[in-house]
Amino acid sequence: MKVLITTVPFGEKDHLPTDLLEEAGLDFTINPLGKKLTEDELAEMVTEFDAIIAGTEPITDKVLSRAENLKIISRVGIGLDSVDLISAEKRGIKVSYTPDAPSPAVAELTIGLMLSLLRSVQVSNMNMHNGDWHRYFGKRLAECTVGIIGIGRIGTGVLSLLSGFKCRQILVNDKRTDLNLDQYPNVEYKTKPEIYESSDVISLHLPLTAETYNMIQTVQIRSMKPDAVVINTSRGGIINEDSLYQEMMGGHLGGAAIDVFENEPYSGPLREIDRCLLTAHMGSMSVDCRTSMEIEATKEVIRFSKGQKLTGLVPEEEYLVQKESF
Amino acid sequence: MKVLITTVPFGEKDHLPTDLLEEAGLDFTINPLGKKLTEDELAEMVTEFDAIIAGTEPITDKVLSRAENLKIISRVGIGLDSVDLISAEKRGIKVSYTPDAPSPAVAELTIGLMLSLLRSVQVSNMNMHNGDWHRYFGKRLAECTVGIIGIGRIGTGVLSLLSGFKCRQILVNDKRTDLNLDQYPNVEYKTKPEIYESSDVISLHLPLTAETYNMIQTVQIRSMKPDAVVINTSRGGIINEDSLYQEMMGGHLGGAAIDVFENEPYSGPLREIDRCLLTAHMGSMSVDCRTSMEIEATKEVIRFSKGQKLTGLVPEEEYLVQKESF
Repeated sequence: MKVLITTVPFGEKDHLPTDLLEEAGLDFTINPLGKKLTEDELAEMVTEFDAIIAGTEPITDKVLSRAENLKIISRVGIGLDSVDLISAEKRGIKVSYTPDAPSPAVAELTIGLMLSLLRSVQVSNMNMHNGDWHRYFGKRLAECTVGIIGIGRIGTGVLSLLSGFKCRQILVNDKRTDLNLDQYPNVEYKTKPEIYESSDVISLHLPLTAETYNMIQTVQIRSMKPDAVVINTSRGGIINEDSLYQEMMGGHLGGAAIDVFENEPYSGPLREIDRCLLTAHMGSMSVDCRTSMEIEATKEVIRFSKGQKLTGLVPEEEYLVQKESF
Repeated sequence: MKVLITTVPFGEKDHLPTDLLEEAGLDFTINPLGKKLTEDELAEMVTEFDAIIAGTEPITDKVLSRAENLKIISRVGIGLDSVDLISAEKRGIKVSYTPDAPSPAVAELTIGLMLSLLRSVQVSNMNMHNGDWHRYFGKRLAECTVGIIGIGRIGTGVLSLLSGFKCRQILVNDKRTDLNLDQYPNVEYKTKPEIYESSDVISLHLPLTAETYNMIQTVQIRSMKPDAVVINTSRGGIINEDSLYQEMMGGHLGGAAIDVFENEPYSGPLREIDRCLLTAHMGSMSVDCRTSMEIEATKEVIRFSKGQKLTGLVPEEEYLVQKESF
């Protein structure tokens, strides 16, 4: 069985994933381009492989049409927006993922980004490195209404980390309205527009779907408080980048922290805005979470190769999300 | 009574402090230079005033010798390293401070700086703004041994905020060894050298005294783990800046976040180091904490002007610390 590992880095901090593949006698190739692949690059690369240990590169119908031997896609991570599940299903290709592993790292980065934005840490740091001393005022989370959109694994993790900070109020929204949030103090369910209007801090923890694509555009941004800060560690495309750029250039919003982009690697105009804190899709990149994502995704491919029961198969509801969007 | 307000900004986000002074009929002047004053600048400025509402500028024996009318120094903040308490006492000048007000803001900034350093947020942000996409590995606090040196108001606040992050272990050190830390899980008392050697994250929450000045120099830095991160939101001078610069230039330490400097405004060589996160003494600069510091310090001066009992007088032990250092 030939395995293509497209996600990079892979096995870098902990060699166990590659060791496991070797022990299992699987022939594997790590993405030779060392970067997130485009659809065309992947389509060209994928032809002879039986399995992909995948990152967030586009695994489209076009790619799958070239992957005649492909039997399993094992995603290192949770998002499935990059995988055409319908096409995979039609071709009898199994899709697994690692939905739990990245959550703690993404939740923790989110809190770090909130605190940086609220205190203008990244702006002061840039100033200081340029020799400019200015003491910015900021806010404590205890002074803030925090809006969390998406209360899945990561959103719940954020709620849990926030509990020590005694936020003035936490507003949440999710597709599910039957959330049990009794254990978190000061939390209230609100509509998305209510969250946009009332929050000092807005953080997104949603999958990218037809429904969430461009969910936040000019109208939504303008409905936010002039000094609100927005964090996106979920998926690019949920916030329209052009709208965000235009509104922030016009002076709206106190700051934004964007870890995920519609096209990665990102090199767009948000780079011009100092109060836009930009990171390189690093939500899951803590050594422990990244390693356990890689190990879980690798073990799934090994289980498949041995004809064992798969444990990370993507559930039917994820297929439904994509079917509904057609 | 004539009041000199040296700390800037003052009354900027909330006008209550200046409103209170006006209501009380006190004649006040806000630092016309708009920056932290040097000893000479302050000595020249102070001659006619009865009260100072003070920042961290040096209120030395030389300054006090020129301040013939001065009867009260009301510090906006907690640190007293900038005030010659012995000289003030000798001259019958009362000294008050606001030790509680800044703590929550400093503690929260400290957590933000820890999370930024652990995930290379500031490095990625600089790269991204320069068009360079690189996904850095990081660590979660749950993977870390965190060392907290100084368990006073701010150190305790940091412990409290850390509780949700489930750090692998927390090591603490303080002059007092009778700390009651039962409510914080996973906390152990250690000597400073043990903390330097064992911690992934080291944070300082100490006053600047003869004892803590240059407490961390080359030897101490070298004893730290090669990828440890160090945070100083307490006072400049506790970490020797030259040593830190030399060791970090040599590749030691994963990062440092420095909010306080021996000479402020800072424009020294740490600016050359990207993994050195620099902020402009902004620990207390949340709107709520800064405002309550200003209001408390102002009310103390007003109480003094009315002959009322002072409530923020610096306790005897702070005088002893300075006396012991001679």
